[in-house]
Amino acid sequence: MTPRDAARAILDSALAAGDVTPLVHRHLGLDARYRRVVVLGCGKASAAMAAAAEEVLGDRLAGGFVVVKDGCAVPVPRVEIAEAGHPVPDERGLAASARLLELAHAAGEESLVLFLVSGGGSALTPAPAPPITLAEKQEVTRLLLASGATIGELNAVRKHLSRFKGGQLARAAWPASVLTLALSDVIGDPLDVIASGPTAPDPTTFADAREVLARRGLAGRVPASVAARLEAGLRGEIEETPRPGDRLFGRVTSVVIGNNALIADAAVAAASRLGYRPHLATRELQGEAREVARDLVARARGLEPPACLIAGGETTVTVKGTGRGGRCQEFALAAALELLPTDRMTVLAAGTDGTDGPTDAAGAIVDGHSIARGTRAGGDVHRAMTDNDAHRFLAASGDLIVSGPTRTNLLDLYVVLRS
Amino acid sequence: MTPRDAARAILDSALAAGDVTPLVHRHLGLDARYRRVVVLGCGKASAAMAAAAEEVLGDRLAGGFVVVKDGCAVPVPRVEIAEAGHPVPDERGLAASARLLELAHAAGEESLVLFLVSGGGSALTPAPAPPITLAEKQEVTRLLLASGATIGELNAVRKHLSRFKGGQLARAAWPASVLTLALSDVIGDPLDVIASGPTAPDPTTFADAREVLARRGLAGRVPASVAARLEAGLRGEIEETPRPGDRLFGRVTSVVIGNNALIADAAVAAASRLGYRPHLATRELQGEAREVARDLVARARGLEPPACLIAGGETTVTVKGTGRGGRCQEFALAAALELLPTDRMTVLAAGTDGTDGPTDAAGAIVDGHSIARGTRAGGDVHRAMTDNDAHRFLAASGDLIVSGPTRTNLLDLYVVLRS
Repeated sequence: MTPRDAARAILDSALAAGDVTPLVHRHLGLDARYRRVVVLGCGKASAAMAAAAEEVLGDRLAGGFVVVKDGCAVPVPRVEIAEAGHPVPDERGLAASARLLELAHAAGEESLVLFLVSGGGSALTPAPAPPITLAEKQEVTRLLLASGATIGELNAVRKHLSRFKGGQLARAAWPASVLTLALSDVIGDPLDVIASGPTAPDPTTFADAREVLARRGLAGRVPASVAARLEAGLRGEIEETPRPGDRLFGRVTSVVIGNNALIADAAVAAASRLGYRPHLATRELQGEAREVARDLVARARGLEPPACLIAGGETTVTVKGTGRGGRCQEFALAAALELLPTDRMTVLAAGTDGTDGPTDAAGAIVDGHSIARGTRAGGDVHRAMTDNDAHRFLAASGDLIVSGPTRTNLLDLYVVLRS
Repeated sequence: MTPRDAARAILDSALAAGDVTPLVHRHLGLDARYRRVVVLGCGKASAAMAAAAEEVLGDRLAGGFVVVKDGCAVPVPRVEIAEAGHPVPDERGLAASARLLELAHAAGEESLVLFLVSGGGSALTPAPAPPITLAEKQEVTRLLLASGATIGELNAVRKHLSRFKGGQLARAAWPASVLTLALSDVIGDPLDVIASGPTAPDPTTFADAREVLARRGLAGRVPASVAARLEAGLRGEIEETPRPGDRLFGRVTSVVIGNNALIADAAVAAASRLGYRPHLATRELQGEAREVARDLVARARGLEPPACLIAGGETTVTVKGTGRGGRCQEFALAAALELLPTDRMTVLAAGTDGTDGPTDAAGAIVDGHSIARGTRAGGDVHRAMTDNDAHRFLAASGDLIVSGPTRTNLLDLYVVLRS
């Protein structure tokens, strides 16, 4: 093909991608071409997604398998729902990833694989390539985290130790078509990061994985099975994860059907309906929970009441103590410490999946009386902050939000009301 | 409601927005609740969108009306398709906006209004509020553009002279539910800018409109009918455009179903399949066409062949001459001037809607021989560049891309191949 023909072919492919017919079909109804749909999924909200898909698909839904975190299962008559360990992967997750690969393989060209992915999907589908064991893969993750590796570096290595992540589920499904509907729990919605991208192109290679280990001083410290796999990959003896541009992605369509912006925007609209002038601080809140809390409270003080400062995103907690809590509870407690009883301010922080840290709370709602209430009930706010033990104090003050698992998982919502 | 209750209500609303059931339904099939769907639309690609919707909806599609640019009509048995003037609005556009408002009013609570919007929709639906005439509204636009007003300032004024733009179509449809599917021809996909946002909240007010005219020194220079309307609006005698948070948007769902990122990403994948190492320069290309062309060619020279530099976006042309052309043709001609016959480089620039400026070409593909070819055929490249007459030269060199209207409208694609 001449370069001119290539240029034209590139334009034609781009226009085909923009053709409104498939775009509209995709948003109004599944292509009627697919009489048989197989539902696969992993992630906290994926069983709820499968239930919704079944309502639409009815008899076209031929079956499938979805793995969720313990407690997140909902009944879906035509789809097998399994639970597995999260955030620490377990044997049930090993079985789940094997089953997902098996069903993807069996789908066949005439089928559509509807892949329903949401946050937590990565931990729920451990699939270390033999002879690497789950314990060995976890050891590599531990070493990388301890060495200060970034999430990008961590994923470059993990995808190359896995049979499932980094587009390999999509490869297993070939030549079936794949429609991935993703709920994003990652800021920016990168499809190769959400649940480690089982149907997304992998921008990284075996060479990148080796380079990460060298850069982090781990080249000689990883288990022998891991080193051997990376070496075999570099020698070309193991197939690379599918790259961007691989023809198999011509049969994969991915749509982020929900993200944190949706949450933040809905909160803005709700605040306005309730008579609070809404201010959207950011849809990408990040940072140390207690510091961000102080900052947002200070910013809300500058607003003319009735007003509502809203942020979406996900804070982090640098754990130094041994207490129980989560980023939203720690945010709320830090915010409460900024409030006087005379302040007409109320602060809410909640994880949209209904769980914050290893607790049964989604977050908390605090006000200028929270510290006094909690202290009267026997709480020790100083200890709670130094020991990362916000859960105990907020339970005492009666400020916890306990919702149980929700039907979504789109990071956190942070709200400061000034009334 | 106490602030604590309000905080909780805001969380509940946000979680409802993130609930996977409607999100999945929306992407797999229209809510079965709506037995009757009315299709409305405006924009270059909106008839093609209506045809696609009809294929999915079948008998549930009760009727509707869509207005497109001359030449962009496609037959849709259940929907009336009209053509109107673009880019200069005309009487047919006035009739079209009136018809769209009328059908929105008539829809009723049990119906879904499916609004199919794409670029060009604003010019196709002029609806100056009486007694303002179309000529008077165009005069205001002309004055604003001549004064250096930004697109944001222009829209703040125009929405407040219109009965249709800035969310007013959605207001007309209340209490019907509205699902807007948008093809974005605006960088960043702002729903209030695409076709002037007939179903999107308007962040601007009558006060903003007056402020813009004052800032641009036009307060005493606009037609009397325009000044009178803005004054009446400021006195509260005319209803404001619907604001963010207005309860009517609780019944409006908007989805950007295609944007330029889709085009650029598909081009990257196609280049890779064809053996060119793809480099995505940007999905938000802006700037003076001829300058951007030189820049992209220079960047492509630095790539190791075979490589392909890809950009999506929309350049602009500061018109100084009286010739015929468009931003993509001018880009291509400026790029051709940078290429030697010995350069193994090929440059494509094309508007995804199939028309570039007021010509029948979508753009052009040029190489190191284009200037010689065009000159041999009687073209004058110097004159073509100084008189903004790229079309004539590229017709002579045989480099035009002539596709006719496409089934989409997602800004432009720019490609430089190094082979």
